[in-house]
Amino acid sequence: AVSKNIAVLAGDGIGPEVMAAAVKVVRKVGELYGHRFNFEDYKVGGAAWAAAEAAGDTPTHLPASTLEGCEKSDAILFGSVGGPVDQQHEPRWKDCEKNALLGLRKRFKLAVNLRPSKVYPFLSHLCPLKPSIIGTGVDMVIIRELVGGIYFGEHKRDGDKAFDVMEYTVEGIRKPMVFAFEAARLRRKKVTVVDKANVLECSRLWREVAREVHKGYPDVELDFMYIDNACMQVIQKPSFFDVVATGNMFGDILSDAASVLPGSLGLMPSASLGDGLHMYEPSGGSAPDIAGKGVANPIAQILSGAMMLRYSFQLEKEAAAVEAACEEVLKSGRLTGDLLEESQRSNAVSTSAIGDAVVVAL
Amino acid sequence: AVSKNIAVLAGDGIGPEVMAAAVKVVRKVGELYGHRFNFEDYKVGGAAWAAAEAAGDTPTHLPASTLEGCEKSDAILFGSVGGPVDQQHEPRWKDCEKNALLGLRKRFKLAVNLRPSKVYPFLSHLCPLKPSIIGTGVDMVIIRELVGGIYFGEHKRDGDKAFDVMEYTVEGIRKPMVFAFEAARLRRKKVTVVDKANVLECSRLWREVAREVHKGYPDVELDFMYIDNACMQVIQKPSFFDVVATGNMFGDILSDAASVLPGSLGLMPSASLGDGLHMYEPSGGSAPDIAGKGVANPIAQILSGAMMLRYSFQLEKEAAAVEAACEEVLKSGRLTGDLLEESQRSNAVSTSAIGDAVVVAL
Ligand SMILES: CC(C)[C@H](C(=O)O)[C@@H](O)C(=O)O
Ligand SMILES: CC(C)[C@H](C(=O)O)[C@@H](O)C(=O)O
Repeated sequence: AVSKNIAVLAGDGIGPEVMAAAVKVVRKVGELYGHRFNFEDYKVGGAAWAAAEAAGDTPTHLPASTLEGCEKSDAILFGSVGGPVDQQHEPRWKDCEKNALLGLRKRFKLAVNLRPSKVYPFLSHLCPLKPSIIGTGVDMVIIRELVGGIYFGEHKRDGDKAFDVMEYTVEGIRKPMVFAFEAARLRRKKVTVVDKANVLECSRLWREVAREVHKGYPDVELDFMYIDNACMQVIQKPSFFDVVATGNMFGDILSDAASVLPGSLGLMPSASLGDGLHMYEPSGGSAPDIAGKGVANPIAQILSGAMMLRYSFQLEKEAAAVEAACEEVLKSGRLTGDLLEESQRSNAVSTSAIGDAVVVAL
Repeated sequence: AVSKNIAVLAGDGIGPEVMAAAVKVVRKVGELYGHRFNFEDYKVGGAAWAAAEAAGDTPTHLPASTLEGCEKSDAILFGSVGGPVDQQHEPRWKDCEKNALLGLRKRFKLAVNLRPSKVYPFLSHLCPLKPSIIGTGVDMVIIRELVGGIYFGEHKRDGDKAFDVMEYTVEGIRKPMVFAFEAARLRRKKVTVVDKANVLECSRLWREVAREVHKGYPDVELDFMYIDNACMQVIQKPSFFDVVATGNMFGDILSDAASVLPGSLGLMPSASLGDGLHMYEPSGGSAPDIAGKGVANPIAQILSGAMMLRYSFQLEKEAAAVEAACEEVLKSGRLTGDLLEESQRSNAVSTSAIGDAVVVAL
């Protein structure tokens, strides 16, 4: 039995609702398997900004108190941040996602981002692709480098000119690459490195490191694909991919493209792994348009909790149980509105009812 | 009546076959409308490399004689270059596409790349997306900046580190942006600027220039979208887009993603506009696997010829006639194999027969 402290950063929009469901599920896992999980709430995003403003403090999207709280925890469970599209210019929302997410990634060196994209066979009618394209099924994991590349290189404005520097070191590439090969070994044993090596020096370094790391994994197949082609294949032949390893920006683009295949962002979790302390969050955003209505899909947040059990607490059995419970609930046809055709939306099950159903299925 | 010199760079793989069909069609336009088109062949890509080697000269993918030939011409009609995937390490094919294409873009300052992506209603069954997703139809044009950004910034390797610099100037952005607004005016009057302004300084400069240029086009709607979201929308709601304006790398990625929607790369032409001298090429590659068999789809090359008539020679009527002829042939069911279900492939029409059919339809 373990005892763990979990920093809960629910954030904005649908964050608090889906987080409540996920916390309920993880709590239940604790009860059933005899673990002790302590949840501590911290503010982040527009919610943090507003709270500071109300208290007369200098507002920020990522308060020092939140960072300290995370520091003391064994894992970070993150909801989502950000405001409505038409309010992006308001101080409360301006650069909210960027400040919160890049701040956390940088502070906790969350170098390896892990985003599965899987089309559940029984939900394949939700995939925007034709059945003939889905073929043998879609089940890929994108490993994205998360603290380097053009995100964290120099950004400069000089009169009429602007610059952004993409930079990578062998060390910075090796970490996600090793993770990708390890992951592939437990899956279909294929790593596809996605880059733009015909143009970028960074990509050529990625290929060198990939070939070097590959030597330790002769049982895993390695291939290379340009990012432009990869974005085509995600639409044309997504079953091709097993594990993808790629840089920060290409990973941002490719994982978002792949995340629409399951039919709803509300299904896809993610993990961002640091040195010891990891963060877990759904792939979707804060969806302010449906916030507070109890209609958001909590599955991605619950599955992010399962990833936390697996990667932060080494509770593989418990993680698998949560995943199986989610699948059972989805299979049973208890679905939130995002997973239903428009004509069926009146049969939608609420956020909290889905959470309860997963708890029961456990 | 006009008299024009056209530099024909057929290149490798299917290039020569589809080029033959396109030249035949443009020749016919000359006959019918009383114009004089002179075609001059120049070597490029692996073909240029091999020819130089055979002659005992220093091999290159873009010989000086080809550049001089282009210089003397009124337009460049380009086929495709590149070798088989498993031969990419051979000198003849190594960096072939990059050397040929980036060389031509740089030399002739081909700053504005124009790539339409259109799902023909009568071919919509070829689109990898479900009919419900295609919705009201897909008809977008991507305007990609082609001589700047991370492609032409500094690329450096320094021991264990690699760098690539993305850079943009106001002038470099203004050119494609003005073109995008002009194009939108003739279409559905919407420009979507695709960038990553939450991370990149260059993207923030793109937004500034977009807002400034927009002042001259109050009748056109302007909006902004992050590249990660744009790659999602291309799959989820492609009918959203009218004209997209974007940088070199994001344009590379997004236009390739969008190019799979029509169902075959063999349908999509492109234009790369410089200062006076422009280049036209199909969106697809050299497809070495089907080269020399007379089965490649020449429509993209023929439509590239139509774009040449329009943008280089201001022959709008003639361009529209070629486009209408292509549509008529496609509608009539005379199709190359790429446009047929596997079970129907025995009914495929050959490359040259499609070319002839377009000539007749003219
Ligand atoms: C908000 C933004 C900076 C972020 C990114 O680009 O990394 C987001 O798109 C993501 O993928 O988590
Ligand atoms: C070959 C390569 C350098 C080129 C690019 O990335 O621009 C190609 O992908 C294209 O889009 O024409």
